Order: sequence, then C-alpha cells, then structure tokens
Amino acid sequence: MKLRHLVIALTAGATLLACSDNEPNSVGDAPIAIAIHGGAGTITRDNLSREKEAEIREALTLATEAGYAVLESGGEAVDAVQAAIQVLEENPLFNAGRGAVYTYEGRHELDASIMLGDTLEAGAVSGVTNIKSPIEAARAVMERSRHVFLSGEGAESFAREQGLEQVSNTYFNTPHRYEQLQRALTALNQTEDETTLIAHQHWDNAFNMGTVGAVALDADGNLAAGTSTGGMTAKRWGRIGDSPVIGAGTWADNESCAVSATGHGEYFIRYHVAADICSRVKYQQLSVVEAGDQVIHDVLVNAGGTGGVIILDPMGNISMPFNTEGMYRASKTSNEQLTVGIYREE
Amino acid sequence: MKLRHLVIALTAGATLLACSDNEPNSVGDAPIAIAIHGGAGTITRDNLSREKEAEIREALTLATEAGYAVLESGGEAVDAVQAAIQVLEENPLFNAGRGAVYTYEGRHELDASIMLGDTLEAGAVSGVTNIKSPIEAARAVMERSRHVFLSGEGAESFAREQGLEQVSNTYFNTPHRYEQLQRALTALNQTEDETTLIAHQHWDNAFNMGTVGAVALDADGNLAAGTSTGGMTAKRWGRIGDSPVIGAGTWADNESCAVSATGHGEYFIRYHVAADICSRVKYQQLSVVEAGDQVIHDVLVNAGGTGGVIILDPMGNISMPFNTEGMYRASKTSNEQLTVGIYREE
Repeated sequence: MKLRHLVIALTAGATLLACSDNEPNSVGDAPIAIAIHGGAGTITRDNLSREKEAEIREALTLATEAGYAVLESGGEAVDAVQAAIQVLEENPLFNAGRGAVYTYEGRHELDASIMLGDTLEAGAVSGVTNIKSPIEAARAVMERSRHVFLSGEGAESFAREQGLEQVSNTYFNTPHRYEQLQRALTALNQTEDETTLIAHQHWDNAFNMGTVGAVALDADGNLAAGTSTGGMTAKRWGRIGDSPVIGAGTWADNESCAVSATGHGEYFIRYHVAADICSRVKYQQLSVVEAGDQVIHDVLVNAGGTGGVIILDPMGNISMPFNTEGMYRASKTSNEQLTVGIYREE
Repeated sequence: MKLRHLVIALTAGATLLACSDNEPNSVGDAPIAIAIHGGAGTITRDNLSREKEAEIREALTLATEAGYAVLESGGEAVDAVQAAIQVLEENPLFNAGRGAVYTYEGRHELDASIMLGDTLEAGAVSGVTNIKSPIEAARAVMERSRHVFLSGEGAESFAREQGLEQVSNTYFNTPHRYEQLQRALTALNQTEDETTLIAHQHWDNAFNMGTVGAVALDADGNLAAGTSTGGMTAKRWGRIGDSPVIGAGTWADNESCAVSATGHGEYFIRYHVAADICSRVKYQQLSVVEAGDQVIHDVLVNAGGTGGVIILDPMGNISMPFNTEGMYRASKTSNEQLTVGIYREE
C-alpha cells in the first residue's frame, strides 16, 4: 500500500521529485531520517543574542543526534522521537519539561502526545504538573493504558502507577518564563478583550514559544511523531492546546507522513493542521513540501494562525514550513548531514 | 468556493447524485436540514423492549423537532445543534448530561464540543462535573474565551464566571448507569489485561452507549456540528474520549461536511474520524455516503473500532453509517419528513 502510494505521488508531477533528495542510493537501501523543532515565533538576528543562538544550535544538534543514534543502531522511530524530545524537555531553553511557561495561576501544566505511523496507535496527556517527562507519559498511555488521552490529576495517578519519574511542579521553574508571565499578566490586565489581544498579535510571540517535537523514519519504514509543550503563557481554565490533540499538533501515518506542530495552538486545533497536511499528501498526492506550504502559508495565514510544522514522509523527504520570523529546527537523514535552522533565510 | 466544490463533486460521478434527494426544488431555495444521533451499539429488537424503544423514538423526535424549529424560523445552524443536543442531555436515556455513565471512581465527567462550518470556530470542554449542559459550556468556550479547549476544574471556573447553570454531580445519577458501572468493575477486576478486555469486545457495548450529537444546515448555507457525552463507563485517569476532540468526534467545514461521531472513542481519535470523512469529501470529491462508508465500514472495521457517525453536507445530503447492530438516529430536512432509525434495517 505504501509503495503504491509513493508511485502515485511520483507520477503526479515533478513537485515531489523536487524534494526527493533522500531517495535511497540503491535498491534495498532503507532511508532513515529525523527532524525536530523547538518552537516558532518572532525569532530574528536582531532579537537573538549570539550567545543564545549558539546555545540553541547546540541543543538542537544534541537532540537530533540523540534521535538519529537510535535510528542508526536499528532502533524504532518511536524511540528516536522520544530520545530527541527528552533532550529538549530537559533543556530550560525550550517550552517543554523544564523551562515550560507559566499558567495564569503561576504554575506549569504540561501537554504531550506521540503517535505511530504503522498502527496509528497514539497516546497523549494534558495538564500534567508533576511528571518529569510528559512525552514519556504520553508513550506510557499509548502502550500501557486502555485509553489514548489522559488529563490532569488522573494522568498523574496513572503515571505514578506506572512508576514514571515524579518532580515537584517547581522543577519546571525558570526566571525568564516567570518574567514572561508577569508581562503577559500586565497585558491581559490592560485589556477588556483577551481574545482580540491575543488573536491580533498584540501579544509577544515569545510568550508561547518553544514547544518541541520530533518526527522520525526508521529502517523498517515506520514513521512516528511526538510533541511536548508547556502551552501558552498565562493560559487559563485548564486550557488544552494542540500539542496533545492527535490530528492537530501530532500525526503519523505510514501511508502519508508524520507531523509535529508548534504555534498558536487554538488555530492548529481548528484547522486540524497535522492531519490535514497528511490528508493532502494521502488524498491529493501532494508532496510534503506542497501540502505543508498550503496549510502553513495559505490556510493558516488566511486564518491569522502563526506557527510551523516539521513533516517527514516514508521516503525520508522532509519539509519544515513556518509562517513566523523563525523556527528552531534541525534534521539529519541517511543522505544528508545534520543541519540546524533558526531564521527564515536558512 | 463552496459552489465550485459542489460542481466538482457532481461531475465526479453518479455516486453523489444517488444521494442528492435534498437538492433545492427550485433555484434560490435554500435547503435546511438537521440530523441527530443518540449513540451506537448492540441495539437489536431482541434486547430493546417495546416500551423503551417507544421512549427513545419519542426523545429522538423531540430533539430533531427542537433543532428543526430553529432552522425553520431562520435561525443559525449552531443554535439548532445546541437546541437538539440539550433535549438529549436532559433526557436520562442518553449518555450525556443527566444519564451520563459513571467513571471508575463512581462520579460523572462530561465532555462536549461544537464547531461552525463557516469560520471553523470551535469550542470544547472535557472532564466537567458540575455544568448542567456541557454543550452550552463548549459553546461558551468558543464564543467567550480566548481558548478552544478547556478541561476539568478550570473549565468549571470558566463556566461559573460565565453564569452557566451549575448542578451537583449527583444530578447526573441514574440507577441503570450505576448498575452498568458495577458490571463493568466486575469485568475489569476479573482481567489482568484491561486493554484486551475492551478492545476485543468482551465488554458490554451498552457500557459506552448513548453519546449524543447533532449536525445542522441553516438557510444561509452554514453547517454546524456538536457532540456531548459522559464518555465510557468506568473510564479512568481523567480519560478524554473523542467527543471533545475537534476532528475526532466533531467536525464542521462548509467546504465539505459536518460530522458528529459516537462509538469507541479511542479509535475515533486515532483515526481522526470526523475530519477524515470531510477530508475525503473535500479532497477526493466523494459523496457523504461514500466517505462515511469508507471510514466507518472499511477503516474502522479493519481497526476493530465500533461506532457510527451522522454526516451532513451543504446541499442537505445526509448519511448516517454505523458498524454496530444499531444507532439511535433521526433527521429532518426541507425536503424530507422527520424519520427516526434505531436498527440496521431501517
């Protein structure tokens, strides 16, 4: 089925060929690939210090290498995704795990999800507060519960039963995220219309930035995708964003592609961004470049939704479109060296 | 855009024509339509008493009439959806609002979502315990918050701030659902593998049955969809099912269709059922009958997922496929009298 699909995609035109650098060098070569992101937003050379840029490039490199090492040793895509994301969860530069943004009430509520492209199995957690690695919790839900999506205190209980590592909520604290919360609260207190405030971009993009995610292709031809986040600074009322919503922030299907998203989550839910990109690949035989560009640059831009995605197909083709100033991203495949990107012109 | 889409659909073959009974009688006639469901499962003439069947048919009729009355008086699709669902939420026969199933811990945690086909605005709540009408809460999230998806105690706080009617959690109690919980707990206590127990159908379908939903088309050509549920009997760990997940249990897009789903929610999330049906309509120019049949009878049956959906397109065409013994359902359009269905052969 997968092979037939790819043949159809190839005969559909030159557009996919244009991004098929990762085709196996010889028949029988199985491509392996990983792509990661660490958030999209107003990232420009003017507002990112050289020192911080170097730190971010190093973190993205380490995460990509951690995931690629799994694939290179014959490991599964899902293990590569988890390995890469956990490197970023542990790094306070990103809005996932340690370094997560603060809620309106001044704590951390984390969301994550993971999905397998061969079986369409999936797991997700939302609003967890004491699980050290939300992506590990999402995977435990997928593999060890009869449910797909667990939330709040219930998800915490499940994680404790499963023996996952627990931390105090203050483990996720960082001074720069606390300072962002104060600025966000000030902005919210000065408006009577929170929806307009945020929708119309009178809202520092950095407040939401730093969701992390990974997509991987293993030597067996299986795709996987995962996403982990602290959500949106000053989020309220048990808000769930797109990251734990299968089809919105995360999607994987061997018949089309794997996607992890980052951006203004409400839009990514309403436009079911991750699954819609893969539906366009599956039903319209678009390349991952075409499908991603349509959804990120046409659909989302028209709607006013900011963000980006990483996309990977079963041939190892990667696309990483974003409609913001920048997106932290990196990739490595069996045919391409590790590359790291931050700004638009990279 | 919508008109062009329909023309393409018509030229694609006779399949859509076969279900196009609801085309306007004359140019300028705007069709209006509503379809509802009250759950899918092992419903046969043998296990449903005549008395209960009559009660259910009456409830489905009242809900459909409530929604249709809104449309007939020129009201919006979203109001028709809410009106129909609220009739079912208030009826203890259904697993939504009063009559909701019990969680593992013996309480009620309700989920709901709603979506507009013209703007793709959406709202959802999950795990709410004291909001009388979860569908009203989902709508309030859509219209009056800066978020799309609220959960748990946070969603309760939001609803209280918005002045939505509060009830004690015991308001949702019913003896027959309590009895189902006891049987479900017995089954769970007798197995060491809960996932297999439930996945392999050694689980009374009635435990999960009775999710309610509605899709509507108003005279302005706008679609809307909504779903409300108590979830799955004996659900644990803050489990979120498909009903509040935009794209899984609920979807509406004027360019394709509106869908509300009912069934084994974990499968409906993993196969993003509601949005996938509409993606097939949108990208493959399938009719709502073809798209619904593919997903419900092929994709879900192959995966082992049981349930059904109601689907409505912008011409007023309705399809209500299910892969269970029966599905409580009803519809009424400007060209067709109200019809109620329960069993397969209706």
